[in-house]
Amino acid sequence: MTTTPHTLAPVSADLLRQRLASILPAHCLIEETEAQRPYECDALSLYRELPLFIALPETADQAQAVLQCCHELGVPVVPRGAGTGLTAGAMAHPEGVLLGLAKLNRILDIDPVARTARLEPGVTNLAISEAAAEHGLYYAPDPSSQIACTIGGNVAANSGGVHCLKYGLTTHNLLAVEMLTVEGERVTLGGDGLDGPGLDMLAIITGSEGLLGVTVEVTVKLLPRPEIARVLLAGFDSVSAAGDAVGAVIAAGIIPGGLEMMDALALQAAEDFARAGYPRDAQALLLCELDGTEEEVAQHIDEVSAIFTAHGATSLRVSEDEAERSLLWKGRKSAFPAVGRMSPDYYCMDGTIPRHQVSHVLEEISRLSKKYDLRVANVFHAGDGNLHPLIMYDAADPAQVTRAEQFGVDILELSVAVGGAITGEHGVGLEKLNQMHDQYGESELHLFEDIKAAFDPQLTLNPGKGVPILKRCQEYRALPGKHNHGC
Amino acid sequence: MTTTPHTLAPVSADLLRQRLASILPAHCLIEETEAQRPYECDALSLYRELPLFIALPETADQAQAVLQCCHELGVPVVPRGAGTGLTAGAMAHPEGVLLGLAKLNRILDIDPVARTARLEPGVTNLAISEAAAEHGLYYAPDPSSQIACTIGGNVAANSGGVHCLKYGLTTHNLLAVEMLTVEGERVTLGGDGLDGPGLDMLAIITGSEGLLGVTVEVTVKLLPRPEIARVLLAGFDSVSAAGDAVGAVIAAGIIPGGLEMMDALALQAAEDFARAGYPRDAQALLLCELDGTEEEVAQHIDEVSAIFTAHGATSLRVSEDEAERSLLWKGRKSAFPAVGRMSPDYYCMDGTIPRHQVSHVLEEISRLSKKYDLRVANVFHAGDGNLHPLIMYDAADPAQVTRAEQFGVDILELSVAVGGAITGEHGVGLEKLNQMHDQYGESELHLFEDIKAAFDPQLTLNPGKGVPILKRCQEYRALPGKHNHGC
Repeated sequence: MTTTPHTLAPVSADLLRQRLASILPAHCLIEETEAQRPYECDALSLYRELPLFIALPETADQAQAVLQCCHELGVPVVPRGAGTGLTAGAMAHPEGVLLGLAKLNRILDIDPVARTARLEPGVTNLAISEAAAEHGLYYAPDPSSQIACTIGGNVAANSGGVHCLKYGLTTHNLLAVEMLTVEGERVTLGGDGLDGPGLDMLAIITGSEGLLGVTVEVTVKLLPRPEIARVLLAGFDSVSAAGDAVGAVIAAGIIPGGLEMMDALALQAAEDFARAGYPRDAQALLLCELDGTEEEVAQHIDEVSAIFTAHGATSLRVSEDEAERSLLWKGRKSAFPAVGRMSPDYYCMDGTIPRHQVSHVLEEISRLSKKYDLRVANVFHAGDGNLHPLIMYDAADPAQVTRAEQFGVDILELSVAVGGAITGEHGVGLEKLNQMHDQYGESELHLFEDIKAAFDPQLTLNPGKGVPILKRCQEYRALPGKHNHGC
Repeated sequence: MTTTPHTLAPVSADLLRQRLASILPAHCLIEETEAQRPYECDALSLYRELPLFIALPETADQAQAVLQCCHELGVPVVPRGAGTGLTAGAMAHPEGVLLGLAKLNRILDIDPVARTARLEPGVTNLAISEAAAEHGLYYAPDPSSQIACTIGGNVAANSGGVHCLKYGLTTHNLLAVEMLTVEGERVTLGGDGLDGPGLDMLAIITGSEGLLGVTVEVTVKLLPRPEIARVLLAGFDSVSAAGDAVGAVIAAGIIPGGLEMMDALALQAAEDFARAGYPRDAQALLLCELDGTEEEVAQHIDEVSAIFTAHGATSLRVSEDEAERSLLWKGRKSAFPAVGRMSPDYYCMDGTIPRHQVSHVLEEISRLSKKYDLRVANVFHAGDGNLHPLIMYDAADPAQVTRAEQFGVDILELSVAVGGAITGEHGVGLEKLNQMHDQYGESELHLFEDIKAAFDPQLTLNPGKGVPILKRCQEYRALPGKHNHGC
C-alpha cells in the first residue's frame, strides 16, 4: 500500500500562536523557554526537547480545537499526561505543539452497581481507587508512579504494575475511550460489553503511545477489594533458587496478586531506605502476595510456603496484618528512589524474558556491569518475566552516559536473544525505536506502519516515536532541518 | 485518507484453476457444484453462495501460495474454519476462492510448564482441552459449538462461551497468531509476554472475522483445572426476579465461572430434551457455576444461595458431584437443539444488553413475538448481558422467513436502543452489516474502514463482511456484475 509522504508545510509560528491564543486562555498556552523547562523531558531525562508551544487545555473541546488547528496547519502534536513515562514517548517536537492533558482531571462518574469509573484523562491512577474506595471498589493496575501518572497516560502506555500478573494490564481493565483523531474528530471506542461489534479499536489504541489519537475520556472497570491480602517474604541464597521457586508457584496453578524478585543490591538499597526488615544477607528476595477470601488465602499461603521451603528459602515471613503487609511492600515500592540515593542518576531498563532464563540473564547483566564499569540493581516482576535493571551512572560524566546507554542497548538485545521482548510495560517511545528492528521482521513493521498511516496519514501525531516509519525514513532524512529522532 | 478503490481485474477461471491445481493436490481443490454444496453456508442457513473454487490446503505453505496467487490475480478470498459461524461471515464469494483451513488440524505443541498450546488453525476447540487434560490443564473459552468449531475460527470470531464471564473471551486467552496477509506474507503477531512492543496487532486481528488476514498458527494459554466446580440451579417465578438476583451476585463481588438464564419456553424445551430435572413450572431459570478451591466454592455456594433465596427463588438445587453438575449443564448446552426440535427452523440472535434491562427487553421480545406471529425462546448469558433469542420459523414458508428476519432486525435495534450492542459473540459477518450503522457513527466507521484498508487495500479478503465500506459502496455498486451483499 502506498501512503502519503511526510509533507509538513512550513509553519508560521505567528499564525499558530494567534490561532492557539483564540482557543486557549492565556495561562493555558506556554511559549517562553524558561516556563517550558518543566516539560522538556519525561522521567527518562536522557532525551530533552522544547516545543514551539505548550497547550494545556482545560476542556475536551479546547483539546479538540487545538488538534483541528494543528491538523489544518500541518503542525506536529505530541500528547502528554503527567510526564512519568520512561522512554521519552512524550518528548516534545521542536516544530510542534506539546498537548498536555493534565488539566482535564475530573472524575465524571463512579457507578458502584455497574462497577465502572468514567474519567477525564488527567485523573491520576491513584485518585481512581481513592474515589472508588467508599464503595469497596478499586482500580487494579497500579504502576509504581501511581501517585502521579494519569489514566490517559496509562491508556497510552498500557500500564501494568505489581498486580498485573493476576489482574492484567490497562487493556484488561478498560471499557471505553473517547478519542480525538489527528483531524480533531471525536470517536468512541469500546463500550460496556466484553466485546464490541467490529474491529477491536479499543485494544489497538491501548498502548499506542499517542501515535493514533488523543484520549479525552476513559471508562475503566472497578473491582471489589479482595476480602484479605497477605504477603509472603522469602530470602534465597541464589537468584536461580528464587527463580525456580517462582516457576514452581506458577506451575502449582496459583496466581498470586503479585510476585516480585529483587537481587542483593536492590534489596539492600531498599532495606537501607525503607527498614522493612528484609534479610540483608540474602542473594535474592521474593515477595508473593496472595489475595481472595480468608479460606483461599490461608490455603495458598500454606502451599506457597511449602514450595519456597522446598526450593531452599533461607528465611520466610508472612504478614500478619495490613500494617505489616504495607511495610513489606514499602521496600519494594521504594526500590527505585532507594537505588537513586546510591548514585547521582540511574537508567531504568524494561525488558521481558522467559522466567526460566532469569539466572542466565542476571549473570550476563553482571558481566556487562563489569564491562561497562557501572553498578546495576535488578528488580523483577518475576511472575510475568518483566525485568527492570537499574543502571547507576553520573549524568555529569559524558563517558558514563555513553556507557549507560550502550549497557541498556545490550540488555534489550539480550532480552530478544533469549526469546523475550524489548519492553514489558514502559513502551517503545523514542528510546527503543531502533530495537524494534531487533524485535520484529520487516513484514510486521510494515503492518505497524500501515496502521499508523490509517489513523495519521500525514504522520503529525507524536512523530518519530513508537513505530519506525520504514518507507519514510529516507524521505524524512532528506527534508532539510527535520529532526528525525531514532528514525 | 484516500485509499485505492476496489478494482478487481476480470479473472480467467481457467488461469485461476491452472494456478490452484499447481499448488494443491487434486483432492484439495473443489470445483463441481454438488461437491461444493456442504460449503454453501455457515450455521446461519439464511444466506447461501457458492465460490468459483474451494481450496482446502493441507499445509500453511499451500495456504500461503493460494493467497499469493489470488492476490496476483485480484481474486477475492474468503477464509473458513468449520463453518459453525452464525452470521454468514464465512459465506463464499461467487467470483472468489473459499479457503478452508480445517485440514490444518495438527496440535503442534503442548507445553505444560509454560502452560501454552501451539496449534494449527483447524484444531477444534474441544481437542485443545482434551490434549491438555493429561497435564491437568484446559483451554477456557468454550463456545457451544466446541466439538466442531476450530481455534482459527475462534480467533476470527473472538469466541466466548458460558465461562467467559470469569475467564474471558478468546482475546484474553491468546498469546500469538501466525497470520498470512492478503499478499501471502507470513507475520507473527503477539508473543509470550503480557504486552508486546508496539501496537497490539494481536488484539485487532482477534475478532476481525477474516477481514485482515488468514490465521495459520495459534498459541493459546492453558489454565489449570479448578480444584472443584459446583452448579447452583434456581427457579424463579418471573424473569425480573431472576435478573435482579444476577445483579445482586455480581454486586456481591462474586464472579461465577458461569451464570446463565433461560426463560420458560427455553427451559421447558431443554427439560423435554435433556431430562435434567429442571423445575418445569418456573418462569425463569438460573444456572450459576462456582469454581476454585474447596473452601472458596463452599463459601460462594452459601453466599449465592442466600442471594437467590432473598430474591425469591422458588426452587434451589446444588450439584453434589460431577455427574450431577454435567446433568444440570446438559440442559443448558442442549437448549439450541432442543428448541430446534420444536420448530422446522430457528434463527439464533445475539445481542448484548445492560443487565438491568433484561425484563424490559424480554417483554419487548414477547410483544414482537405476537406481532410477527413467531414463537421465541430466550437463552441468556446473564452474567455478561449476552442475550440469545431463538426465533422459531419454517424456512419452507417465505412469509415466515421474511418475518423472522425482520424480527431479528428489531431485536438488534432494540439492543442498541437500550444501550447494548448488535452482537455479543457471533460477530457482524454479512447478517449485521447494516446494523453497524445503528451501532456506530460515521467517524467510527471511517476508522474501521481505514484499518481494513491498511491490511487489505484492494478489499479482496472476505469482501462485503464485518465492516461497511462507506467510501467504496458507490464504486462497488457501479461495477457491473458485482455482488455487493449488505454494502
